[in-house]
Amino acid sequence: MNDKIRIGIVGYGNLGKGVVHAVQKCDDMELTAIFTRRAPESLTVPDTDITVVHIDEVEHYTDRIDVMILCGGSATDLPEQTPYFAERFNTIDSYDNHARIPEYFAAVDAPARTGAKTSIISVGWDPGVFSLNRMMMEAILPAGETYTFWGPGVSQGHSDAIRRIEGVVDAVQYTIPIDTAIERVRNGEAPQLTTAEKHRRVCYVAIADGYDPAQIETAITSMPSYFADYDTTVHFVSLAELRADHAKLPHGGFVIHSGTSTNDHTHIIEYALKLDANPEFTASVLVAYARAAHRLHQAGQYGAKTIYDVPPGLLSPKSAEELRRTLL
Amino acid sequence: MNDKIRIGIVGYGNLGKGVVHAVQKCDDMELTAIFTRRAPESLTVPDTDITVVHIDEVEHYTDRIDVMILCGGSATDLPEQTPYFAERFNTIDSYDNHARIPEYFAAVDAPARTGAKTSIISVGWDPGVFSLNRMMMEAILPAGETYTFWGPGVSQGHSDAIRRIEGVVDAVQYTIPIDTAIERVRNGEAPQLTTAEKHRRVCYVAIADGYDPAQIETAITSMPSYFADYDTTVHFVSLAELRADHAKLPHGGFVIHSGTSTNDHTHIIEYALKLDANPEFTASVLVAYARAAHRLHQAGQYGAKTIYDVPPGLLSPKSAEELRRTLL
Repeated sequence: MNDKIRIGIVGYGNLGKGVVHAVQKCDDMELTAIFTRRAPESLTVPDTDITVVHIDEVEHYTDRIDVMILCGGSATDLPEQTPYFAERFNTIDSYDNHARIPEYFAAVDAPARTGAKTSIISVGWDPGVFSLNRMMMEAILPAGETYTFWGPGVSQGHSDAIRRIEGVVDAVQYTIPIDTAIERVRNGEAPQLTTAEKHRRVCYVAIADGYDPAQIETAITSMPSYFADYDTTVHFVSLAELRADHAKLPHGGFVIHSGTSTNDHTHIIEYALKLDANPEFTASVLVAYARAAHRLHQAGQYGAKTIYDVPPGLLSPKSAEELRRTLL
Repeated sequence: MNDKIRIGIVGYGNLGKGVVHAVQKCDDMELTAIFTRRAPESLTVPDTDITVVHIDEVEHYTDRIDVMILCGGSATDLPEQTPYFAERFNTIDSYDNHARIPEYFAAVDAPARTGAKTSIISVGWDPGVFSLNRMMMEAILPAGETYTFWGPGVSQGHSDAIRRIEGVVDAVQYTIPIDTAIERVRNGEAPQLTTAEKHRRVCYVAIADGYDPAQIETAITSMPSYFADYDTTVHFVSLAELRADHAKLPHGGFVIHSGTSTNDHTHIIEYALKLDANPEFTASVLVAYARAAHRLHQAGQYGAKTIYDVPPGLLSPKSAEELRRTLL
């Protein structure tokens, strides 16, 4: 008998590719199919025995997939797709538009309840395990301050903002947490810090012939919201160098809470990620939560959920008894 | 109407004192009473309006307390007390004898189910939030290694071992993680490390007149299990200096996981604690889980639980809706 958790993937960008690899690392799971809006035969998948299906065929898979991992983007894909899938499948997604999470939750919760399915939304690292740590730190030490630092890592939004400047051929922007700010927090000083006081920005930019680097640098460093408030460094490099040295997507960051118990006792709680490949790590978190979604569904817990609702033990392939015996 | 969570404390050592302060920091809780085996009037409590009751009176409080926080020791107090209390109250404890957790769980689970109560066992930081992080890190990146470093901090067991040497008046032992070992782990080298390769030991020792420091130092550094395998440093100080400079109970440590997604991509997840006062931080964790125990009980989830069973959102005084809106 095959009792592996059967996984489907919707969308095959960097995140979907990461999910393929993450599922392969889990002995209790198998990948049933990847669903795509493109021509299925146009996808390059790492193993020839992976099934690729056009998304229009997905209705035929409702009995063949335990959890569907939705790997589309938060701007347009997920708000459209997730309510549809949530009625038909247990789902996991990485919806990351923090401000719109309440309305997204409501839009997913209703169809999931109608279909008696379980959907865990906004899984990943931020939102995701960073959110989990922020919440737990505040619950444990309510008298305190919580700080989130992002990076060192590539920000797609800031890279795109540079690419929109005339004369720029390509660009990569790294967000870098400021060490002295981290140290002040770790030392328990509990400083007030703006986002710009916590981060600096380093840009690698390839420009077209005939454009003035000085002008482009000014266009970058004076850009409101994105760069003007920040300590920003611009390096001009050739397109070949940009492609060779800056094609990876490292990221990470720190959640640090500085809190007091009695007046003279300060405690520092820190959660840090250093990621070689942002989408692959996010994919690994999605897959662990897919295991939890399957188990919540088996227990009859329907509707939309977040990481705050999921008993952590459900993430592990180990039984509750084995967790108590080996990891507690 | 008073709908605060009513807390009772059993045992008034360092941990029980910490719980008093931690409850005072929570607007949704109130301390009903401290229960003690000593003469109630002999306890020095921080506020004169705190009720202290002899433990023999506890049966009269079954309707007046929502969660009882058991602050006894793991060696003898908790194995005796918790099964008794678990049948009558929702309970939280910090049972920390890792090897005997399965039998302790069983001994608490049965009476809690009989009494339709909820008991969360082995709460604190190790076991506790460290265990939670070890489990989550392995679930997210199953291809990897997890490392726990303890300290810098005072180890009571090692301090006691020194005190048993003839001629020693008092002693404090600090367990200190070895920086170079931490760096190797953070760099993703995934080394094989014994406990002795991860930690060194620094001892402050006051001795009686007429004893030879060199002999006592040898007695310490050659002590099997405790010190012989470790890089151990012994400092002789006066009793006055020991009491003045080494009376605090700082502690902390690091859980670090080094895992891979695809072969060439390594991710480092780190959870770190730097605690000014070990018992006060442990108390803060107990109090957050007391909130969760109350809510699990209200939801009809009876029996023994561990941190792995508790949906994290139940730790927060905020509602699920507020958590999604403000912290996700």
